[in-house]
Amino acid sequence: MDNQQPILAPSILAADYTQLGAQIQACNKAGIEWLHCDIMDGHFVPNISYGPAIVQAAADSTDAFIDVHLMIENPDAYIRAFVDAGANQITVHQETCTHLHRTIQSIRQHGLAAGVAINPATSLQSIEPILNDVNLVLLMSVNPGFGGQSFIPATYQRLQRLCTMREEQQADFLIEVDGGVNLDNIEKVSRSGAEVFVAGSAVFKAPDIPQRIADLREKAQIGKEMIV
Amino acid sequence: MDNQQPILAPSILAADYTQLGAQIQACNKAGIEWLHCDIMDGHFVPNISYGPAIVQAAADSTDAFIDVHLMIENPDAYIRAFVDAGANQITVHQETCTHLHRTIQSIRQHGLAAGVAINPATSLQSIEPILNDVNLVLLMSVNPGFGGQSFIPATYQRLQRLCTMREEQQADFLIEVDGGVNLDNIEKVSRSGAEVFVAGSAVFKAPDIPQRIADLREKAQIGKEMIV
Amino acid sequence: MDNQQPILAPSILAADYTQLGAQIQACNKAGIEWLHCDIMDGHFVPNISYGPAIVQAAADSTDAFIDVHLMIENPDAYIRAFVDAGANQITVHQETCTHLHRTIQSIRQHGLAAGVAINPATSLQSIEPILNDVNLVLLMSVNPGFGGQSFIPATYQRLQRLCTMREEQQADFLIEVDGGVNLDNIEKVSRSGAEVFVAGSAVFKAPDIPQRIADLREKAQIGKEMIV
Amino acid sequence: MDNQQPILAPSILAADYTQLGAQIQACNKAGIEWLHCDIMDGHFVPNISYGPAIVQAAADSTDAFIDVHLMIENPDAYIRAFVDAGANQITVHQETCTHLHRTIQSIRQHGLAAGVAINPATSLQSIEPILNDVNLVLLMSVNPGFGGQSFIPATYQRLQRLCTMREEQQADFLIEVDGGVNLDNIEKVSRSGAEVFVAGSAVFKAPDIPQRIADLREKAQIGKEMIV
Amino acid sequence: MDNQQPILAPSILAADYTQLGAQIQACNKAGIEWLHCDIMDGHFVPNISYGPAIVQAAADSTDAFIDVHLMIENPDAYIRAFVDAGANQITVHQETCTHLHRTIQSIRQHGLAAGVAINPATSLQSIEPILNDVNLVLLMSVNPGFGGQSFIPATYQRLQRLCTMREEQQADFLIEVDGGVNLDNIEKVSRSGAEVFVAGSAVFKAPDIPQRIADLREKAQIGKEMIV
Amino acid sequence: MDNQQPILAPSILAADYTQLGAQIQACNKAGIEWLHCDIMDGHFVPNISYGPAIVQAAADSTDAFIDVHLMIENPDAYIRAFVDAGANQITVHQETCTHLHRTIQSIRQHGLAAGVAINPATSLQSIEPILNDVNLVLLMSVNPGFGGQSFIPATYQRLQRLCTMREEQQADFLIEVDGGVNLDNIEKVSRSGAEVFVAGSAVFKAPDIPQRIADLREKAQIGKEMIV
Repeated sequence: MDNQQPILAPSILAADYTQLGAQIQACNKAGIEWLHCDIMDGHFVPNISYGPAIVQAAADSTDAFIDVHLMIENPDAYIRAFVDAGANQITVHQETCTHLHRTIQSIRQHGLAAGVAINPATSLQSIEPILNDVNLVLLMSVNPGFGGQSFIPATYQRLQRLCTMREEQQADFLIEVDGGVNLDNIEKVSRSGAEVFVAGSAVFKAPDIPQRIADLREKAQIGKEMIV
Repeated sequence: MDNQQPILAPSILAADYTQLGAQIQACNKAGIEWLHCDIMDGHFVPNISYGPAIVQAAADSTDAFIDVHLMIENPDAYIRAFVDAGANQITVHQETCTHLHRTIQSIRQHGLAAGVAINPATSLQSIEPILNDVNLVLLMSVNPGFGGQSFIPATYQRLQRLCTMREEQQADFLIEVDGGVNLDNIEKVSRSGAEVFVAGSAVFKAPDIPQRIADLREKAQIGKEMIV
Repeated sequence: MDNQQPILAPSILAADYTQLGAQIQACNKAGIEWLHCDIMDGHFVPNISYGPAIVQAAADSTDAFIDVHLMIENPDAYIRAFVDAGANQITVHQETCTHLHRTIQSIRQHGLAAGVAINPATSLQSIEPILNDVNLVLLMSVNPGFGGQSFIPATYQRLQRLCTMREEQQADFLIEVDGGVNLDNIEKVSRSGAEVFVAGSAVFKAPDIPQRIADLREKAQIGKEMIV
Repeated sequence: MDNQQPILAPSILAADYTQLGAQIQACNKAGIEWLHCDIMDGHFVPNISYGPAIVQAAADSTDAFIDVHLMIENPDAYIRAFVDAGANQITVHQETCTHLHRTIQSIRQHGLAAGVAINPATSLQSIEPILNDVNLVLLMSVNPGFGGQSFIPATYQRLQRLCTMREEQQADFLIEVDGGVNLDNIEKVSRSGAEVFVAGSAVFKAPDIPQRIADLREKAQIGKEMIV
Repeated sequence: MDNQQPILAPSILAADYTQLGAQIQACNKAGIEWLHCDIMDGHFVPNISYGPAIVQAAADSTDAFIDVHLMIENPDAYIRAFVDAGANQITVHQETCTHLHRTIQSIRQHGLAAGVAINPATSLQSIEPILNDVNLVLLMSVNPGFGGQSFIPATYQRLQRLCTMREEQQADFLIEVDGGVNLDNIEKVSRSGAEVFVAGSAVFKAPDIPQRIADLREKAQIGKEMIV
Repeated sequence: MDNQQPILAPSILAADYTQLGAQIQACNKAGIEWLHCDIMDGHFVPNISYGPAIVQAAADSTDAFIDVHLMIENPDAYIRAFVDAGANQITVHQETCTHLHRTIQSIRQHGLAAGVAINPATSLQSIEPILNDVNLVLLMSVNPGFGGQSFIPATYQRLQRLCTMREEQQADFLIEVDGGVNLDNIEKVSRSGAEVFVAGSAVFKAPDIPQRIADLREKAQIGKEMIV
């Protein structure tokens, strides 16, 4: 993973939904590799965002890797729908999966990458048994449910500990951070070990989306180079 | 209600989500009075559609009456969010409301119109106690969850019986139908007593949206005039 | 039931909980026949009131018939506890009992009277199959959950229809009303067919509790005599 | 349906599970047309009986029509499994199906017959909208969950009313009764309108299973002939 | 925390509910600093105790710090009600909070102290991510639900480990123990690291409540002084 | 535990249900000490297997120790039924027990041995607080729900770590493995620390059941002797 470039994953949760295609085109101009889709069901989190139809609209608007983050209860019931919608990776929350190993296998059997996400107050130990089975670990840096929240500083230390766990278990997953990432903190987030950076408001509320993406990437790269 | 013109309520569930604003503009051109928003949470129905943010994007794109249909469990928890998003009316499912009278009052206390919806296999008697408290009754003419399904013919008779109940109880609500309404059946739906017609695919999959809306309205008007 | 005196059932939900014993003594002075206990679990209704320990404290303070009204999910799991606490009758909500016939039998097998309650928006037809098995039907005249709410006027007609159903089915149950009953409406409530009157604030917020109970009874009796 | 012979449907719930094959052979000897499988999940009813594997074992032991009665929550999730196990008909409980019309259609799309069941305290009106879509209506004559319970007498009148509803709606379904049917009451059950008779203990606890089946059938036929 | 006096927190769960005011007056005489309120909803735990109205009655009877312990599912829905009832601190169970970080923040945003509680079989690691965000950690020393149970001895070691975790994380919370604390074990409980001692039966079943409180405090102080 | 012989626990999940008694007789011939019963409710796991009645049929067919593994939600509600059915040990899943300590005590109060099971992705730390209270720990080596799945290799390391935890905590429980154990891997499973081996297909799909049991035992013994 050492030569991995920082990956910026714009989340359309903060986009202007009246012109989603155009908003994603702006991201495409910046050459984004990933597009992040935050699916909320109003049960696991106290908000409803959107589902497969909008993921499909997004997937049809870009060649980026479609990174679907399921903040929903009973995710197993919706894997098929998001596969059909064009997802390249599906990330599920540990808190929602009684049979997490089965869910991860199920995603991979569809030919997709599989990730696991945890909330800010969920212990890293709780995902230890699955680390060798996933392609990605997503640490929530806000409480999931809404865009525009502030980054929780305790995440920096959690990122470092997750890096250590990855090394100890000789596991091979990417580390993603979601929530409150912006120009002010992305360097430190990167330095703490994150490799994929979800950015919602920081991208879509910017005056010039492609420029903002470039700026965020540059700062993430600086942070990455500071890791010894 | 006798002089009420048929109301066509396009449902954005079938719209092209990459250009939602433009799709709604096409409806505006046809002078739509209502815009219908189908909210699905993946729990009450086996699909997740979208939530308050997209309702707000829709409301910002039109002057039409925003008609929000909550196909979600625990709707009480989301009334506030849809009020803030610009809803003018909120319709809840009888099947999801243990305290339906309280839920209806709660919507009205926010200054909105309040409706009740029932599934195809739910008895009309189950909503009899609330008929004098609502502004609208929505009869589902497909099983809720997906666009593009076929109209269930038993709905015609249910519409007629609902009209009779309205008269007997001297109640004062509009009758809306949702599911599979199209150019082929809207006249008969209207003749059976419906006054508000949700149309998804029939509108947004049409080659010329404003023309299609005009055609649907005309047929609904013909049906209406056939009621003795 | 024709010679049945109106039964006033003070609900301790409105009592001063710092001196519950003394409050019940004041009711005892008025010779109350029933004491009503409103059990809320914060799940069926949006409030938690109290459970078996306080029922037992109440039962130990009076010789009145202890009338326990379970506004809780899964009431079967708590029948035993309320029997042990001194209940003489347990009333369950139709909305909470998938196997209502079993629940009613279970209460009766403990040697208690059994009642069924319904919310304001629940149809009377929904309890039709159980009417010949219960000792009491409780019509909610407010949405359950809180004391101090206003009586819903549609209840008057529901009382009359319930009387008719009782006659038609040759059933033999008492009719109880709970919610917003006070000096201003108890006469009409009685005239509409109620035989047991739950009163919370109307009793416990009164300056002279025994006098208020006497006044309520008197008005209920007047209403009863107006039934032809 | 007038020439329909009474159908006896032995329920293996009461069979000796150490020799299920032999027990079913005894039924085969009597030429049973149907075999009834009572599936309980410990959630909808307070007992766990068995699932698809045992249905398959039963189906492999007989040429009778496999009549699967799902006393389970969320039956949609298990339709596929019971189809694969050899079911010819699947009956679901109205109390468990928010989208009953969809569930019935789903069963029929698998090529099976579809039935709806209701508990003793569930109103007949609640299934009125689905009567024209089902092949069978099952009236529970005990509270579901356990074998060996006593027949609830109110079922006789419910059977008669269901017959009337069938006539009025010009519907075309069989009427099945489940719970406590035995030699003493099957004639009256038949006379009240039932056409399919589930019998568990009455069959499998008998000293001579084929003889008992013959006796039950004969009495059912007598009852049938008494219907004017 | 070194100079912190042991805090005794009488739980009114064991009080005589017919004279709650007088029972709390007896505690006031002993100069209690905290009063503990055990809220049970019959869902998270198999008992219903009481809700906001009784907390308010208690709060009105004392100047002590009102320490509310929510043994309920979905505690977020009830924070507002307990704030209004006079709570000074709200403690939620880790087992009930999918979004524990959000819940803790929500309590603090109301200006209250916030605590987290865990059951006897819940690992200390599960609360490790929240330790720097809470004012109090409550270790259950019985399985929650009922008063009068025996202290689980494994709690002593858990207290010591929690002290170690607090030091390691440089966190700053009080340690509270709830369940079976009495004159025989409070010294050892204190020596093991507890700083706040919930006592129900030990206080309210005592012949002289103020004397008992004094005795418990004294023993807790002795235990505290034995910590090196 | 050092002199403990490997225990083979055939699971009847893979037996021929048409002749369960005969299948168990074949096991009896091999002198099995334990018989394993996999109870699935279709809620905790996506399959329904069987319940108390079949456990009782099994218990009546053998003198072996009846080892009941509850893969069900809310296991507390069913302990009594499985005790009555003849269980000697009941194992519950940590993932299903909010009050695991209470559940384990409850099983032991019925005079039975008590075990705790965890899924492949559940951390060993999650059961650390209960290790001194149980008679058995069951590590799932497949995702529970179906027979015939492949053994997950990560289980080997989990077994070793569990052995270490047992030593560190001076606990005294047996270690059981369930899922995909067969002739090819049982030696290594045994060498990794397992002491009780559930085998379903490996036993009941064998051409000669007693011989297969003997073979499995022998290999398990070889594995055991390789532990230093």
